[in-house]
Amino acid sequence: MITNKKQIKLGILGGGQLGRMLIREAMRYPIEVHVLDPDPEAPCNKLADFFVCGSFSDYQTVLDFGRNVDVLTIEIEHVNVEALYHLQENGVGVFPQAHVIEMVQDKGLQKQFYHDHNIPTSPFCFIENPKELEQLDENWFPSFLKLRKMGYDGKGVISLKHKADITKAFDAPSILEKAVEIVTELSVIVAVGQDGMIKSFPLVDMEFNAEANLVEYLFVPSRLDAAIIKEAVSIAESVAQKCGIIGILAVEMFLDKEGKILVNEIAPRAHNSGHHTFEACITSQFEQLLRAVCGYPLGDTALRSPAVMVNLLGEPGFSGSAAYEGMDEILKLEGVYLHLYGKKISKPFRKMGHATILASTLEDAIEKAKFVKQHFKIISQ
Amino acid sequence: MITNKKQIKLGILGGGQLGRMLIREAMRYPIEVHVLDPDPEAPCNKLADFFVCGSFSDYQTVLDFGRNVDVLTIEIEHVNVEALYHLQENGVGVFPQAHVIEMVQDKGLQKQFYHDHNIPTSPFCFIENPKELEQLDENWFPSFLKLRKMGYDGKGVISLKHKADITKAFDAPSILEKAVEIVTELSVIVAVGQDGMIKSFPLVDMEFNAEANLVEYLFVPSRLDAAIIKEAVSIAESVAQKCGIIGILAVEMFLDKEGKILVNEIAPRAHNSGHHTFEACITSQFEQLLRAVCGYPLGDTALRSPAVMVNLLGEPGFSGSAAYEGMDEILKLEGVYLHLYGKKISKPFRKMGHATILASTLEDAIEKAKFVKQHFKIISQ
Repeated sequence: MITNKKQIKLGILGGGQLGRMLIREAMRYPIEVHVLDPDPEAPCNKLADFFVCGSFSDYQTVLDFGRNVDVLTIEIEHVNVEALYHLQENGVGVFPQAHVIEMVQDKGLQKQFYHDHNIPTSPFCFIENPKELEQLDENWFPSFLKLRKMGYDGKGVISLKHKADITKAFDAPSILEKAVEIVTELSVIVAVGQDGMIKSFPLVDMEFNAEANLVEYLFVPSRLDAAIIKEAVSIAESVAQKCGIIGILAVEMFLDKEGKILVNEIAPRAHNSGHHTFEACITSQFEQLLRAVCGYPLGDTALRSPAVMVNLLGEPGFSGSAAYEGMDEILKLEGVYLHLYGKKISKPFRKMGHATILASTLEDAIEKAKFVKQHFKIISQ
Repeated sequence: MITNKKQIKLGILGGGQLGRMLIREAMRYPIEVHVLDPDPEAPCNKLADFFVCGSFSDYQTVLDFGRNVDVLTIEIEHVNVEALYHLQENGVGVFPQAHVIEMVQDKGLQKQFYHDHNIPTSPFCFIENPKELEQLDENWFPSFLKLRKMGYDGKGVISLKHKADITKAFDAPSILEKAVEIVTELSVIVAVGQDGMIKSFPLVDMEFNAEANLVEYLFVPSRLDAAIIKEAVSIAESVAQKCGIIGILAVEMFLDKEGKILVNEIAPRAHNSGHHTFEACITSQFEQLLRAVCGYPLGDTALRSPAVMVNLLGEPGFSGSAAYEGMDEILKLEGVYLHLYGKKISKPFRKMGHATILASTLEDAIEKAKFVKQHFKIISQ
């Protein structure tokens, strides 16, 4: 049977760079994009068909926004889940579903979910208030204390090297996670369609910038052993299946010194570890998300080319109207794709954009990526 | 010397699908997009940073619009050239330059330009009024009568098979072009940067839909002899150099039965024959246009994959709110990229979108393209 498709009204909670890149793919489809974000200067403000300035964490605002669309998705987890439950009970297609977002919002529920489903993760315990830390054995350190709610991009995380560091602790419900000796960080983005089809993007490995606590470089294809890649993809797919998501799920993992893979965090949306897919894969993560949430068939995720992705952060020491140093130099290199996010103001370590570098070998792409990192700076005027 | 780049205000005259796809690339750059189009429902209306509803053929409107931007470009030739001359004399970067647009607007000046610069083209003569046709020798037929101004997409062209057909002639300045026995139609898109660098995209060949008078299929890499390809690219580059354009120039050519290449028409802007470059080339024609007009270095134009492009036209017999038949079927195929243009109303043969099909061989891409053509229909609700 041939099905006719009409235009879909898609609502996106959040109007940042992920929403912006989602619009970049939505414009190829019969999709009318509505965006809700509290910042009138959000990166989506001029690109959405309809931009609503308002809080995505407010029940009534999300309800009113969601009633106007056919399908509702997110580009940030910190949204009002009660409104999403209400909307999905009343016929709006909410993808990822409210229960998935609710679980991911709370790092405690996330850890409990891994534990309940035998998904490997680092040892953890719940900390209701700082006093509980005093009771803990010295064996729990070094560790990371993470706020259960509202943390992102390294915010809401404290490193506790020794028990003596607990004076720095949050006075809010948190989880304590034992530090793991990490060889590398991995990510697999898994898509699940409305027809139940499941497709993963090729695994990527990443290098972190410790100071900014953000991904500095992402590499694909991964240089890890095939057996480890296979295991990580299988873990990621099982997380997606066990939480029952429809949409896309980024599964960030650690590979530890003993060769064990541990799930670190998940994000039920487009993710920084999938930005290279625009140019490096047959289907981008953004198109795949649209396909999943709008009920189209999933696209092929095969790699077209080795790639390195570099996050482009605001240069430390510069705050103000953004200016771009070394832009001509990097644009002269073959296979460098610049993606700026339309943010007019740069601040130290603010995510201002990314660059994807394609080359016939990963080694060549790495060399070019280092050139990009070295020569391209986002400063202020 | 390292140069710092700031945000550029780019004005686009015309807000159709070409402008829309230009915005798709501009959003990755520090470019603020302003669009002028008379249609409040133009495909760019919601995507431009600033959309001005007004006539791009009106002197004062173009002048007022152009004064607000740093760089002005076009996505349609039929714009007010006097205003462009004025703006470029007053420091606005007008690319392509006014003299190039003026020449291309008038098919008579275009033909004269080919003649004056020894660029091969089919025999032609100027027709001031229909009476002049009566004086012509029977040898001039079969031929095409083309309005000198305002023709596009097959509009403003009449086929005159025999001298007896001249009763159908336009009552306006036209050119008469002798019909050529065509083997195939070719196109080369040439970019010229502000630094004088010149780069061509790989030559494509095309199959026409005679009824719609539009490209039906585009193929790349071309299956023609290497010597013919080389000659056509060299002709296209010499046209770009001789007219002195900065920007991109699509050079459409005929290959005739004697193996001769003849320039048919040129377009100093993004062109239908370059739509596949989004996925099939390292740099898209739209990014290349931005790089040229904004003064960035040109990008690499190498082919990443064999590709076929299919124009998606409104199905004959359907007029009204667009609906898409067979969408799931084509999205299931690996390597099919759907690009719809955001036009809500479909009409017979209206350009509603295109699809690019990538495959490891051109033969596989052709097979999939035929499936797309057969199964995907733009009808009305």
